Amino acid sequence: MNVTLEQIVSLAKRRGFVFPGSEIYGGLAGTFDYGPLGVALKKNIENLWWRMVVEERDDMYGIDAAILMNPKAWEASGHVSGFSDPLVACSNCKKRFREDHIEDREVCPECGKKGTLGEARQFNMMFATKAGASEDESATVYLRPETAGGMFVNFKNVVDSFHPKLPFGLAQIGKAFRNEIAPREFVFRVRELEQMEVEYFVRPDAWKEAFEEWRVGMLAFAKAIGLPSSMLHELEVAPQDRAHYSERTIDFEFDYPFGRRELWGLAYRTDFDLRAHQEGSSVSLEYQDEETKTKFLPHVIEPSLGVGRTMLAVLASAYREDELGGEKRVYLALEPKIAPVKAMVSPLLKNKPELVEKAREVRKALQKIHPAIAWDDNGNIGKRYRRQDEIGTPFCITIDFDTLGETPDLKDTVTLRHRDTGEQERLSIAEAAEKIRAALV
Amino acid sequence: MNVTLEQIVSLAKRRGFVFPGSEIYGGLAGTFDYGPLGVALKKNIENLWWRMVVEERDDMYGIDAAILMNPKAWEASGHVSGFSDPLVACSNCKKRFREDHIEDREVCPECGKKGTLGEARQFNMMFATKAGASEDESATVYLRPETAGGMFVNFKNVVDSFHPKLPFGLAQIGKAFRNEIAPREFVFRVRELEQMEVEYFVRPDAWKEAFEEWRVGMLAFAKAIGLPSSMLHELEVAPQDRAHYSERTIDFEFDYPFGRRELWGLAYRTDFDLRAHQEGSSVSLEYQDEETKTKFLPHVIEPSLGVGRTMLAVLASAYREDELGGEKRVYLALEPKIAPVKAMVSPLLKNKPELVEKAREVRKALQKIHPAIAWDDNGNIGKRYRRQDEIGTPFCITIDFDTLGETPDLKDTVTLRHRDTGEQERLSIAEAAEKIRAALV
Repeated sequence: MNVTLEQIVSLAKRRGFVFPGSEIYGGLAGTFDYGPLGVALKKNIENLWWRMVVEERDDMYGIDAAILMNPKAWEASGHVSGFSDPLVACSNCKKRFREDHIEDREVCPECGKKGTLGEARQFNMMFATKAGASEDESATVYLRPETAGGMFVNFKNVVDSFHPKLPFGLAQIGKAFRNEIAPREFVFRVRELEQMEVEYFVRPDAWKEAFEEWRVGMLAFAKAIGLPSSMLHELEVAPQDRAHYSERTIDFEFDYPFGRRELWGLAYRTDFDLRAHQEGSSVSLEYQDEETKTKFLPHVIEPSLGVGRTMLAVLASAYREDELGGEKRVYLALEPKIAPVKAMVSPLLKNKPELVEKAREVRKALQKIHPAIAWDDNGNIGKRYRRQDEIGTPFCITIDFDTLGETPDLKDTVTLRHRDTGEQERLSIAEAAEKIRAALV
Repeated sequence: MNVTLEQIVSLAKRRGFVFPGSEIYGGLAGTFDYGPLGVALKKNIENLWWRMVVEERDDMYGIDAAILMNPKAWEASGHVSGFSDPLVACSNCKKRFREDHIEDREVCPECGKKGTLGEARQFNMMFATKAGASEDESATVYLRPETAGGMFVNFKNVVDSFHPKLPFGLAQIGKAFRNEIAPREFVFRVRELEQMEVEYFVRPDAWKEAFEEWRVGMLAFAKAIGLPSSMLHELEVAPQDRAHYSERTIDFEFDYPFGRRELWGLAYRTDFDLRAHQEGSSVSLEYQDEETKTKFLPHVIEPSLGVGRTMLAVLASAYREDELGGEKRVYLALEPKIAPVKAMVSPLLKNKPELVEKAREVRKALQKIHPAIAWDDNGNIGKRYRRQDEIGTPFCITIDFDTLGETPDLKDTVTLRHRDTGEQERLSIAEAAEKIRAALV
């Protein structure tokens, strides 16, 4: 359906997925705070990626490098000199704008004055700070603008500790910071972002197969988190638009409510990064290949995924409005694997201790399958279902008098309600548990 | 045993737990990069804490707030004016020192000159940076010096979205940054740290029970990650050493190789934080108590745990040296729940395809219990065991010709070796799997 960004932002705040950062202080542009359901959804997405990309493979090594890095690393990588946007200032209102975002160079887009926009100046997007008590220039350090650097500087450490055979890769989930001039579109373009990145090292002649393998792997991940293939588009980046060293780059674009935009990237980066860090550090990063008895800098395939953009794509594609039982409803058709709450258990009436006791017992049993089993005994059953629909809980289980044996044939059966259809079925507790278990595998 | 810090640092680097940050560039003081085994150990500790503190409770709400916060939040909390150390500079060598770390005020501890140390000046430990393209003072933002602030500013958001009843709490795992003048003792005192924190909100008259509940909970967590109670000490902080608003604070101290130091903290903070943020933001943070029909600022119990310090305590207490089969060995007696690798599967000989095939099959079956089942067919079995001992793998399983049925009675049995004792037992594959499963619950 055609969901608007406003609908997502509103649901995210109302139900505790994502709040504006530092909200009681009027916010801080480009920052967001994840609330209880947002943390759960984010963790589920990240854990699934980690499982598929690191834990289930024998050729992948996890890394968690520091956000503050020796500034020489960013000099070597070219970020100190080149990670910048051209900015134009208005001499009247003093505002600055990205030159490539200005439609009419004659008129200031903020105050509307003519002829006030000056020459473009390069503005570095890295956040700088000072480490240590000394005030001299040497103490300037940067918040990393991408997680990749933290992996390249640890390439040698991993080789020395684990002696991996090519091809192998490093993976990292972590924060990166970019001083965006105009953060916008909710968690899409932010100043503090989270990335899931892989640097996959291959023999120079083997990059094509590895590229293809990761392309397929990224599509598999998209499927696992429920992104519909109809909303996901592979854009082969044209030679003139690629980084100069790259022979192939794919942008995975997604149909966001505000248009088709880059979701993930997959790039063949040759040995550009290892070579730059080898030169910058004067430490050899060559790989001694026992098989071919040669020594060389491996080439790199880099799948790069933003967590915020992924979450926004998940929410945008899962958002649904329909009518159920004559009433309008909003629900999130989330994949059970990543849904923040897996099931809700509820006693039909909250003032009947025997129902409450039985429901608590059922919930406890289900929590052995997964801890995220919610409890709700507030208001009527219909309202409880709607609350769970809105946060994407795939199953609701209701305990009633039949569960207790009022109708002897139905003893120890429950109502299992399915989120997307609203359909309910009568099942034994064991059958209901099995349905939940099966949906989470 | 009396492990030295050097032994831990050496093992951590050699086996890929923790590397110095940006090492190929000569490092960056106070930063560390976690390698593959360190990431796994850290994740296991964090996930266990999250499970015990958030997922298994109905009164806890997870938060993941931004590191960059509106600076007004740190003005309100007192960090801008008061989160500082008194520093003394030497007029000869220009070095600076924390005044409380100087033994002899007459002599510079660096260059040894007499009478060169000046007056103490307050040095704020928050890292500052500039957000946005404007150069004016208003754009200065800080990297959060603690995760707590990110929870207090979201107190109202969680109340509005979830309507929790008192007592309830917020929990967060995340990074914080402190510009320590003298980072030292490996991951103990660093500039970029990770915290696991709870802010637990209670009625003012109910703080004592909540404090006791969290005290017991922290001891339970210590036990779950294998910290021996003999190395853990509760220090009741004396009234004159507590923050002025706190009526009770406990430091959990640990016997590190470099002495008894603070591992975790537990503090009763009254309504100090909510009151400060209410005043700073001019947004009411009062809680409407439906039960007592009153409106008030809840009081706070704050359990605060550093992830790096916890990992270092785990490594220090798990480090063992002994003799096994006449040879010296090093092993980590890690709790199976947090060990980076749960079991290693190995074919007795790597050049026998039938052994390799069977071993792969066994490994695959075990990975249904937990993905972190390693494979090692390198060198002789004894060496493989030692390698796993050193990284704390609790179990090793070896597939030999008897597994394949050479001795018919032993078909489908394997050797299960126990890390701490080196003892081996012959079990069916199913029995061995069950032992591993049981150790991970």
